[in-house]
Amino acid sequence: MREHISVQYDQELESIRAQLIEMAGIVERQLEQAGQALLRQSSEPADAVIAADAEVNRLEVTIDDLCSHVIVRRQPTASDLRFILVTIKSITDLERIGDECSRIAKMALDLAIRAPISTRFPEFEEIQKTVEGMLRDVLRALFRVDTEMAAEVIARDKGVDRTYKTLVARITAEMEQQPGDLRSLLDLLWCARSLERIGDHAKNVGEYVIYLSHGYDIRHQPLEAKQREALGASHDD
Amino acid sequence: MREHISVQYDQELESIRAQLIEMAGIVERQLEQAGQALLRQSSEPADAVIAADAEVNRLEVTIDDLCSHVIVRRQPTASDLRFILVTIKSITDLERIGDECSRIAKMALDLAIRAPISTRFPEFEEIQKTVEGMLRDVLRALFRVDTEMAAEVIARDKGVDRTYKTLVARITAEMEQQPGDLRSLLDLLWCARSLERIGDHAKNVGEYVIYLSHGYDIRHQPLEAKQREALGASHDD
Repeated sequence: MREHISVQYDQELESIRAQLIEMAGIVERQLEQAGQALLRQSSEPADAVIAADAEVNRLEVTIDDLCSHVIVRRQPTASDLRFILVTIKSITDLERIGDECSRIAKMALDLAIRAPISTRFPEFEEIQKTVEGMLRDVLRALFRVDTEMAAEVIARDKGVDRTYKTLVARITAEMEQQPGDLRSLLDLLWCARSLERIGDHAKNVGEYVIYLSHGYDIRHQPLEAKQREALGASHDD
Repeated sequence: MREHISVQYDQELESIRAQLIEMAGIVERQLEQAGQALLRQSSEPADAVIAADAEVNRLEVTIDDLCSHVIVRRQPTASDLRFILVTIKSITDLERIGDECSRIAKMALDLAIRAPISTRFPEFEEIQKTVEGMLRDVLRALFRVDTEMAAEVIARDKGVDRTYKTLVARITAEMEQQPGDLRSLLDLLWCARSLERIGDHAKNVGEYVIYLSHGYDIRHQPLEAKQREALGASHDD
């Protein structure tokens, strides 16, 4: 009987892990496709992003339920429990990345009819590439519990914020000079904001990963301290 | 010994509850003050909002740590555990409401130097009042595990979205007519967006409350189903 429960428990943990990997894969694809929709003004990837939304939502709910179930029924050990708590937090951020991708995709569909305007702002290519890399690497950090990589992803968010500020300043200046393009430019501003938020969500996941391995909270601390902590300390679990 | 642990455990749960109430109170006050800063172009409440940010962040980390500690050490019962899981999720949304308030406060400080512009859009008064009410009531619903009130708060978010859409349309039209006010109008647009997001966060907390009492997930279901569920079913815990 004990054996039987332990096998079930392992299966449940494995199922959480498998579905988290599936959800992460879909959201990664959504981000790539949102970027294609925005930068190439192509409607096909935009439709794909929006279509994937329901599946991401479904996975969030399923994983969340599974995690609660395991906590209630299985009394997981400290390290399993940490993985579950980090999962509960990460899926919220992943779901919100999916939402931001859908917003970008919808605006890209709008922009496509109006003007291929994003090419006027090379910073879009840059910020898109950076947040794609952040998401890819923070997911890798999550599955491998790699705190060095997590800290490195957190550090990259500063660059996203810088590029975002430049973009906002440039788009705003363009609004004043080209009032006829105001609505398209406004949509671009929302897209820039969504990309900046995606960077924030990736950073959040990075902070959970460090929490997962060190068992103490690095949020709301200056970056230097975070990095020192993540890079210097050894796993204590 | 058993008795001793049980007393400690009760104290820990009480401490989570007390600190959650404290955090909720601060964030509620931040939202009111952000509204005053925006609608009355007053800098004093804006400064207060920004000053409170550090305390909200500190409380989020402390409560989160306490919750993890109780889960790891105390093997809480199903209903205590649900309260803890809902708390873990709610504090993220509360912290983000605080962030949005700080954003509004910073923009209100900017607007104050430029033009008392928000009075041109009476919808601000309306959306501010609605999200303040949503936050107040969803917190009450959270502490009393009142699913009827939670469902009612969730339903109000539709109204926020409607007012937000009207605001965006009106501000955008004004941008085209008054290009000289573009930068102030853009700040107002960000403020409207922040208020709309605060409504979303209040709605999230409402969904956790219903989850807390029914033990099953209502997210990503149509509103009618949610309400039926919340209003029709009796507490099953």
